[in-house]
Amino acid sequence: MHRAVYPGSFDPVTNGHLDVIERASRLYDEVIVAIAHNEAKAGLFSFDERVALLKEAVEHHPNVRVTQFDGLLVNYALEVNARVIIRGLRAVSDFEYEFQMALMNRKLVGEVETMFLMPKEEYSYVSSRLVKEIARLGGNIESFVPDCIVRALREKFSKNNPRLTP
Amino acid sequence: MHRAVYPGSFDPVTNGHLDVIERASRLYDEVIVAIAHNEAKAGLFSFDERVALLKEAVEHHPNVRVTQFDGLLVNYALEVNARVIIRGLRAVSDFEYEFQMALMNRKLVGEVETMFLMPKEEYSYVSSRLVKEIARLGGNIESFVPDCIVRALREKFSKNNPRLTP
Amino acid sequence: MHRAVYPGSFDPVTNGHLDVIERASRLYDEVIVAIAHNEAKAGLFSFDERVALLKEAVEHHPNVRVTQFDGLLVNYALEVNARVIIRGLRAVSDFEYEFQMALMNRKLVGEVETMFLMPKEEYSYVSSRLVKEIARLGGNIESFVPDCIVRALREKFSKNNPRLTP
Amino acid sequence: MHRAVYPGSFDPVTNGHLDVIERASRLYDEVIVAIAHNEAKAGLFSFDERVALLKEAVEHHPNVRVTQFDGLLVNYALEVNARVIIRGLRAVSDFEYEFQMALMNRKLVGEVETMFLMPKEEYSYVSSRLVKEIARLGGNIESFVPDCIVRALREKFSKNNPRLTP
Amino acid sequence: MHRAVYPGSFDPVTNGHLDVIERASRLYDEVIVAIAHNEAKAGLFSFDERVALLKEAVEHHPNVRVTQFDGLLVNYALEVNARVIIRGLRAVSDFEYEFQMALMNRKLVGEVETMFLMPKEEYSYVSSRLVKEIARLGGNIESFVPDCIVRALREKFSKNNPRLTP
Amino acid sequence: MHRAVYPGSFDPVTNGHLDVIERASRLYDEVIVAIAHNEAKAGLFSFDERVALLKEAVEHHPNVRVTQFDGLLVNYALEVNARVIIRGLRAVSDFEYEFQMALMNRKLVGEVETMFLMPKEEYSYVSSRLVKEIARLGGNIESFVPDCIVRALREKFSKNNPRLTP
Repeated sequence: MHRAVYPGSFDPVTNGHLDVIERASRLYDEVIVAIAHNEAKAGLFSFDERVALLKEAVEHHPNVRVTQFDGLLVNYALEVNARVIIRGLRAVSDFEYEFQMALMNRKLVGEVETMFLMPKEEYSYVSSRLVKEIARLGGNIESFVPDCIVRALREKFSKNNPRLTP
Repeated sequence: MHRAVYPGSFDPVTNGHLDVIERASRLYDEVIVAIAHNEAKAGLFSFDERVALLKEAVEHHPNVRVTQFDGLLVNYALEVNARVIIRGLRAVSDFEYEFQMALMNRKLVGEVETMFLMPKEEYSYVSSRLVKEIARLGGNIESFVPDCIVRALREKFSKNNPRLTP
Repeated sequence: MHRAVYPGSFDPVTNGHLDVIERASRLYDEVIVAIAHNEAKAGLFSFDERVALLKEAVEHHPNVRVTQFDGLLVNYALEVNARVIIRGLRAVSDFEYEFQMALMNRKLVGEVETMFLMPKEEYSYVSSRLVKEIARLGGNIESFVPDCIVRALREKFSKNNPRLTP
Repeated sequence: MHRAVYPGSFDPVTNGHLDVIERASRLYDEVIVAIAHNEAKAGLFSFDERVALLKEAVEHHPNVRVTQFDGLLVNYALEVNARVIIRGLRAVSDFEYEFQMALMNRKLVGEVETMFLMPKEEYSYVSSRLVKEIARLGGNIESFVPDCIVRALREKFSKNNPRLTP
Repeated sequence: MHRAVYPGSFDPVTNGHLDVIERASRLYDEVIVAIAHNEAKAGLFSFDERVALLKEAVEHHPNVRVTQFDGLLVNYALEVNARVIIRGLRAVSDFEYEFQMALMNRKLVGEVETMFLMPKEEYSYVSSRLVKEIARLGGNIESFVPDCIVRALREKFSKNNPRLTP
Repeated sequence: MHRAVYPGSFDPVTNGHLDVIERASRLYDEVIVAIAHNEAKAGLFSFDERVALLKEAVEHHPNVRVTQFDGLLVNYALEVNARVIIRGLRAVSDFEYEFQMALMNRKLVGEVETMFLMPKEEYSYVSSRLVKEIARLGGNIESFVPDCIVRALREKFSKNNPRLTP
């Protein structure tokens, strides 16, 4: 059984994330999409919202499971019996941060390997942060996120807090 | 009529920005320097202060106009009939962020193109953030910003809040 | 009259080049595509072949002219009365080389400015060198180069020199 | 059956390559180390020598097979029924070249995915080119390559061509 | 007397910092490790704690002195009669930030030069920020920081604030 | 006695090199400028010419000595009793190559440390290769190289080989 963990904060999930998930789902028997539970860093969406939205976005992949985790990612990977952590790489700045994390994680738990893959080039510039910013300013985000996120962001920003910082 | 928009937060304008503005003013019939109006991110200078200081700093360029804008930059560019957004590129880190923004903007409004140019190499390390930090610590900033900003920063930091974080 | 020079070796022209040319043709009154004539560095295609192929590839742009030049690019730009050199930027490695060239050129002739723009992201990985390599190995290059180049490369590699290094 | 191809020129194989091979051998059911057969680019070692040396260096991995291939890598991957191409990433410059190749390959054959992993950090600066250079100058290469390569390089450079350029 | 200043926030000191300090202590007659005193940016450890911990960590180096400073680093370097500022470089992102700072500092005080050296490659991914994050999540940090910091971090995070953001 | 080696091919020396030499001469008791003697890689200038030109260019620095060396740089550094190798860093691409070399050299000889410093920003884009190219095309190189090199390049390119590839 080849199982991989794809971790992130997914606040919210973008088409770039979904592209990585789809590719991983073809390469591994099971992919666990794991939302990092960081109480210290509040997001635009609550953890329960993120889980629900991600589940909706990946429900057509039978071998993809959505979870959340506490504590160190590598410990979580061991716990769910995954030997591989999947990360998407888009740009040089990604590269350096991701490598630092991957080397740190390897030092912490040697049995878990981080593997990188590239999202489709048309998603190389899509990030959760930018999508939230554009949605906040009223721009069209339909080509950057799945339908459920388009709706969820519209709802967030149409409320009585029209200038909320994401 | 070739018109370009040069956007930024200009908190405050530096000699690096002014170098880009001068080069753009020679290449386009009109250059609109547009201060992004972001209520969520307060700066050291208020928007009205930034507008006033920028106007003073560029008043010798007859074809440069200073404005501020709300909402998406690309919409603002369309509104003022500009086909071009000008951005200065100094370093690799600039490059990645700027490309992400430019591709996003192109996706949002295809008719507007982002063009990059380089400031003079002696301004390649000048940033608003660093200039504020040096001014706060009492360093000499005369070679990094125009006279009006030297005076304005001196005033900000000589007040009763000598340790204000910029 | 806003005139720009777009220089290169175009050995051969790719869809990435053509995308830059099309964008430039919308932003300038005239775009001069200038093939650098470097006797010291022979290419796969002769200079006459490159000129002919480029002309065919851009013939639908009424304001694009194909030429070749000897000597320093900045001198050629002055000669044809262009104030702007256009370059496409795809990646960090491009960025550094291009900036070195642009700063050098600015030092040589201060009146000519280098402006950078991004090709469409789907062409960000297309280069003349890779296209030739793939064609040589019999791969399908139809999504990377215009039809005239597909035909020209097929001809080059079907000849009696099936293992020619490009 | 999860099978991966690890391509390269391996002229010669280094400890960095071997580290990637070992990691891959733990993550895939079979790893095919595939030496690119490029007649146009002669190396220090002949293709037969490279195959023999690689076989010696990986003989303790029961699920690693050494081969060579002609033509396009993605076609070769399809032929041997591998869905994954493995590449090691060490530095930013690697990153850009590798991404260009991976996107190109994905365009050519969509079913084959390129996955990246990091060699151990102590091999991040080891390259075939540098190892050959140091061996040529008489330096100690024992910490950079396996024993069989130490011997093979010593033999190459002790011959009657003491100043051969690698 | 060749004296160098090695500045930082050291919140807390890592094995990467200590590696740079040790190398510098072999190359200069005296090394002054200078903790930047920034009231605006509170850390996990107080300035007095950082000074005490650093002193403990470097007490075996007779020519290393631990201090703290206010104001501009270059002024402090002049004050203590140091002609050299030492900085460790680990990655491309370091490089750009460090170069910006070094050029700025050179402009402010021409007599002081910034020299860069590399920490051991196994510390290339260790940062104070990551170490604090791992300690907070209960991971093992013994290979990243000296013993005194292991103890100090354990104490910090075992207190009544188990979810404190560093 | 603090002695540093500044190695290079200096084909030919540029103002960027001279700026590094001058800075190093202020920071070390003696600076040995060492021309790498690589028979496999012929340059535009012969080794004897490079030595003579460098000597002329640095003769006003009493503590700078010009030499050439064979074999491994780190062995040469040990031989001349230098604990430090000086390298100039200009750009990200420099950075990666230089780090690879420095880590390799440290592995070969642990007692020798590589220290990096930045040339003046106005020389950040000057390279021997570009200077030769511009001189070959008849451009003005007076702001990039010292007088003796201006004369030497003029002589090289005015001879009967007007199209020599550098």
